[in-house]
Amino acid sequence: MLRRLGVFAVMGLGLLLLPVIAHALDGRVDGQRVSDIQVTVDTLWTCIAAALVFLMQAGFAMVEGGFTRAKNAVNIMMKNVGDFSIAAVGFWILGFGLMFGNGNPFLGTTGFFVSPDTGHLYQALSWTSVPTMTAWLFHLMFCATSATIVAGAMAERTKFVSYLVFSFFISLLFYPMVGKWIWGGGWLAELGMLDFAGSTVVHSTGAWFALAGVVILGPRLGRYSDSGAPQALPGHNMMLATLGIFILWFGWFGFNTGTLMSARINDIALIAANTSLAGAAAALGATVSAWFRFGKPDITMTLNGALSGLVAITGACVFVEPWVAVLFFGFLPGVVVVSSVLTFDRLQIDDPVGAISVHGVSGTLGTILLGLFHSEAGLFYGGGFDLLLAQIVGAVSVFAFAMTCGLALFSAINGVIGLRVSPEAERAGLDMSEHGNDAYPEFGVSGLAQRRDDAVPRA
Amino acid sequence: MLRRLGVFAVMGLGLLLLPVIAHALDGRVDGQRVSDIQVTVDTLWTCIAAALVFLMQAGFAMVEGGFTRAKNAVNIMMKNVGDFSIAAVGFWILGFGLMFGNGNPFLGTTGFFVSPDTGHLYQALSWTSVPTMTAWLFHLMFCATSATIVAGAMAERTKFVSYLVFSFFISLLFYPMVGKWIWGGGWLAELGMLDFAGSTVVHSTGAWFALAGVVILGPRLGRYSDSGAPQALPGHNMMLATLGIFILWFGWFGFNTGTLMSARINDIALIAANTSLAGAAAALGATVSAWFRFGKPDITMTLNGALSGLVAITGACVFVEPWVAVLFFGFLPGVVVVSSVLTFDRLQIDDPVGAISVHGVSGTLGTILLGLFHSEAGLFYGGGFDLLLAQIVGAVSVFAFAMTCGLALFSAINGVIGLRVSPEAERAGLDMSEHGNDAYPEFGVSGLAQRRDDAVPRA
Amino acid sequence: MLRRLGVFAVMGLGLLLLPVIAHALDGRVDGQRVSDIQVTVDTLWTCIAAALVFLMQAGFAMVEGGFTRAKNAVNIMMKNVGDFSIAAVGFWILGFGLMFGNGNPFLGTTGFFVSPDTGHLYQALSWTSVPTMTAWLFHLMFCATSATIVAGAMAERTKFVSYLVFSFFISLLFYPMVGKWIWGGGWLAELGMLDFAGSTVVHSTGAWFALAGVVILGPRLGRYSDSGAPQALPGHNMMLATLGIFILWFGWFGFNTGTLMSARINDIALIAANTSLAGAAAALGATVSAWFRFGKPDITMTLNGALSGLVAITGACVFVEPWVAVLFFGFLPGVVVVSSVLTFDRLQIDDPVGAISVHGVSGTLGTILLGLFHSEAGLFYGGGFDLLLAQIVGAVSVFAFAMTCGLALFSAINGVIGLRVSPEAERAGLDMSEHGNDAYPEFGVSGLAQRRDDAVPRA
Repeated sequence: MLRRLGVFAVMGLGLLLLPVIAHALDGRVDGQRVSDIQVTVDTLWTCIAAALVFLMQAGFAMVEGGFTRAKNAVNIMMKNVGDFSIAAVGFWILGFGLMFGNGNPFLGTTGFFVSPDTGHLYQALSWTSVPTMTAWLFHLMFCATSATIVAGAMAERTKFVSYLVFSFFISLLFYPMVGKWIWGGGWLAELGMLDFAGSTVVHSTGAWFALAGVVILGPRLGRYSDSGAPQALPGHNMMLATLGIFILWFGWFGFNTGTLMSARINDIALIAANTSLAGAAAALGATVSAWFRFGKPDITMTLNGALSGLVAITGACVFVEPWVAVLFFGFLPGVVVVSSVLTFDRLQIDDPVGAISVHGVSGTLGTILLGLFHSEAGLFYGGGFDLLLAQIVGAVSVFAFAMTCGLALFSAINGVIGLRVSPEAERAGLDMSEHGNDAYPEFGVSGLAQRRDDAVPRA
Repeated sequence: MLRRLGVFAVMGLGLLLLPVIAHALDGRVDGQRVSDIQVTVDTLWTCIAAALVFLMQAGFAMVEGGFTRAKNAVNIMMKNVGDFSIAAVGFWILGFGLMFGNGNPFLGTTGFFVSPDTGHLYQALSWTSVPTMTAWLFHLMFCATSATIVAGAMAERTKFVSYLVFSFFISLLFYPMVGKWIWGGGWLAELGMLDFAGSTVVHSTGAWFALAGVVILGPRLGRYSDSGAPQALPGHNMMLATLGIFILWFGWFGFNTGTLMSARINDIALIAANTSLAGAAAALGATVSAWFRFGKPDITMTLNGALSGLVAITGACVFVEPWVAVLFFGFLPGVVVVSSVLTFDRLQIDDPVGAISVHGVSGTLGTILLGLFHSEAGLFYGGGFDLLLAQIVGAVSVFAFAMTCGLALFSAINGVIGLRVSPEAERAGLDMSEHGNDAYPEFGVSGLAQRRDDAVPRA
Repeated sequence: MLRRLGVFAVMGLGLLLLPVIAHALDGRVDGQRVSDIQVTVDTLWTCIAAALVFLMQAGFAMVEGGFTRAKNAVNIMMKNVGDFSIAAVGFWILGFGLMFGNGNPFLGTTGFFVSPDTGHLYQALSWTSVPTMTAWLFHLMFCATSATIVAGAMAERTKFVSYLVFSFFISLLFYPMVGKWIWGGGWLAELGMLDFAGSTVVHSTGAWFALAGVVILGPRLGRYSDSGAPQALPGHNMMLATLGIFILWFGWFGFNTGTLMSARINDIALIAANTSLAGAAAALGATVSAWFRFGKPDITMTLNGALSGLVAITGACVFVEPWVAVLFFGFLPGVVVVSSVLTFDRLQIDDPVGAISVHGVSGTLGTILLGLFHSEAGLFYGGGFDLLLAQIVGAVSVFAFAMTCGLALFSAINGVIGLRVSPEAERAGLDMSEHGNDAYPEFGVSGLAQRRDDAVPRA
């Protein structure tokens, strides 16, 4: 009798002991903690995502090169390698500290020269468990993406050295500032603005700087007739442009999921699905729109259409339902981008690859639409106007900031070292004039391209 | 004495308590379950695999574009972007539900408009723990692969709009039906047919539809002389074709391992190794075979050889030993694909990229060989005839189904909107006639290509 | 009183029981072990890394093809597909056993025909928990990389069959031997030499074999004038060369992190960051260096610059601090590679793609610099001369071994079947003469390229 009582007593006490046991075990089983493995998985995912976003540099290079003329292909390749390289070193020296370092709501002031030991200097990243160098790596890829967007819009007439100077400033200073505001706990974050993977931070920032650059630069020689009518200067390689789109799309899986810097699987599942759906629906939207307008489905519109959906969903991918992704972050931006490209064209804003429309217009569209369609806080979901207003304030502020800084910076560069190559250099192609290289020495295209330009009266 | 007895008693009781403790802990250590992490890892793997398979779209685009003429390159790019986009939207609306939804052995009838909440509607996927949107994403990539195979075989003469209509039907209806039969718990699954990653489901289905399309379309202008002798219409870019092969091979690591939708590492290790070995041995097989036949190693045969091994091992990769992968799912399909390409050529089945041989013949070969070499159930491993018969029934059924539906569908399209462009459009190239685009406006190839066609008497 | 005493007693005993409980649980929670999950994560990481390194084959193909002339593009593509295919089969049959099999400090003698059951035959890999087939797969990718480096340096004049024979020997015999010495527990490992991901094992080994091949082959026709002055034979496609660089860089994330064959996240974080920084700084170093030398930033130097940093950091990436990666494994190799390319050029060592400088000189530079900058054992970190000496001995030994074997092997091949194509075949291009293929049949480049050669007096 007493024995049985004793057994029950011990069993009861054993149960009471469980919290103690659990605490003593402290998640350590077989020499390792479950939480350690979670950190491992988070880190691996972020690293893989960073690698995928890195490959987007190849995608941008192929799209921008394919959409422009052969005589400038080397120059575009050099800009893409150059801006990534400058961004990598600059974001390591200065940019990451400005973006995530401790400081004020406008700028971080700690954590330069990132190393494995500087982790405590980025309080804005204290929510993530991945190692400092991994957080830096992932955000470097975003920074380089923002910088490289500009190369396309300013292609075929910008001095190489001037572009490198610009790259230095955007990756070291301006992009990190916008990043601080929205992702580094700055004033737009406090206002409640949401931009999950950077429709505004990455894409619109790059695009509005590009717009400023294009305004200062003016259109390419021969792009508009004396009467102002746009003259097509078609890109030289549609297969490489398409390859670029597929590579960008592939990288976008890393872009949109990696920003979690954590392997939260339901989020990842939704993000990856929404990203695919928006890109696909936008490609269809642009195809149909161009088909109606031109009578034929045009490849440049279809490709830019796919990108416009990917850009639009970027800031919203974890917050909206799949059907919303299809219709409003996909089909709609696809239709809008066609109109946008044609409108900028009429305004003589000469953007050879459509980057301003794809990254700026679609990025802003996606940012604002999130205020309507956020599945909890969106206006159409009963969340009221708060989010919508924050999104609008954020989008407008970044536009104003990027345009102002962009116009000032490009004007300064223009005044000091010149922003644009000479008309002779532009006609000959930047490959020869800026690099002494020929992208295709055996295909005899430089001469052909030159003859075309000469045939344009205004050139 | 009593104390020591007490100690032993408590220790003994403590051990008895272990099941209780374990149950109470319920795998929850440090706030997280080990099983949660397994699900996380499974999901991440499936997502990465899906991204890799997505990139195969780029691979197919480069192979198909590279193996055909420059005047049709834009059209092929548009078909590849278009069929993926249609597949994404269509497989979300309808296809996934038909394939994995609850229903009958022939067709699912639940789970359309996939969302994070529709998971319970796919009982056929109850074995996997990955989120619904991830399962959808991965299988979308398979669906789009099957659709895109057809673009290559029907290249250089198919109307764009007609191809889009076909894409809609294959990704919404026909591919999901075959998928249901074999992977969705349908009648071929019940019969015991095995097709691990889709030698039949994905590759042969696409290829037999392509065969039906080619039969309805007829050969390209100038492909056969009046006497019926094949005339070479060589592809325009072997570097991009090779790039495409490498990208496809890269994607195949995701294709064959991702279908597990689970991170079972011994399986993954064997699958990835067998995939590499089969692709490599098949490239060698085709190279040697072509060298003997033509006196020189031909690049189109080597590249298609590599693919033929990758296709053949797809359905068997987890079931066979490495040496079997090398010899029978590698070298053998590599040799066979060369004969197959030449045979279809003689039969005036004009498949510009060899897709029917690569995906149809090799896919079927691999499916049937599995009945012989399955390392447990194969005939040569003492498993008897059951598996072999199931494989044969499966391969034949899918052939009959795809050919019947394909002939009906393409005939219907042909009757209603026309399947083939006009001879003038075909001579001018589909890029200009269908899209108003020139893939290489500075290289002056369209004109050149046109002159070639004109020189062929029958054109 | 007695009760409270009893409670405390039981609680105390419960705590004493913890080791017993932990042992009984044996890490098994919810039916699974934490350590199993760690193995799963390790394996997945290694598989992904292997896939990334596989894609480097595409990168090499694009760089090598882009940097050479159009009339030899098919031949280079065939070599790249061929050497991977031979490496895959050969490393499975023989190479992996020679490299990691049990045996002596110079050669493994067990574990040929790798299968899931041969794991116990590779004691040198007992430290890793990944499945045998995964370890094989990852190291196959390294082996194939080493082999493919040679294709670029010997491009545009080597007989296809002779190159395949060479591939067979390097991947089956020579590369595995060097691997055994350094990674398989051989004599250089015992000496204390460090080569984390293969600056020497993979890159220098390939490059010194390439140097031997180039010495035996002699320069391309028309490469040097009668007076010995180098004549530029520019590569035919700079966009594809740039694409190749980006793909290689992308693959390098797998190359340098995957060699851990374990998901050690702090290591992975540092490796990936150092890899990016070194590549970027080296691209800048080479750009600046070429700008000073030539007056313009040259694309071939920038691209080879990026590679030189990636090669230099490969062996050191986990051992050095980020600032060291930037300055000494990045900027410095970038500057050096420009001088190296020009020096080999003057010496009439005709390496069309700069592979000997990029992989041999930078690989050796990185290997030796590690002796200075290793953050624990480096000379400049107070670690003394031990490591530095081991690094020098290792680098010199591999150079001597590869050059000796290379000269012997290529001489033997030259004597038996001939190493170089005939002058007529070289002028016509290897695509036609060796394969009967034209990489770009519609662009009319073969003829153009031929005329160029004819115009060179010495040809």
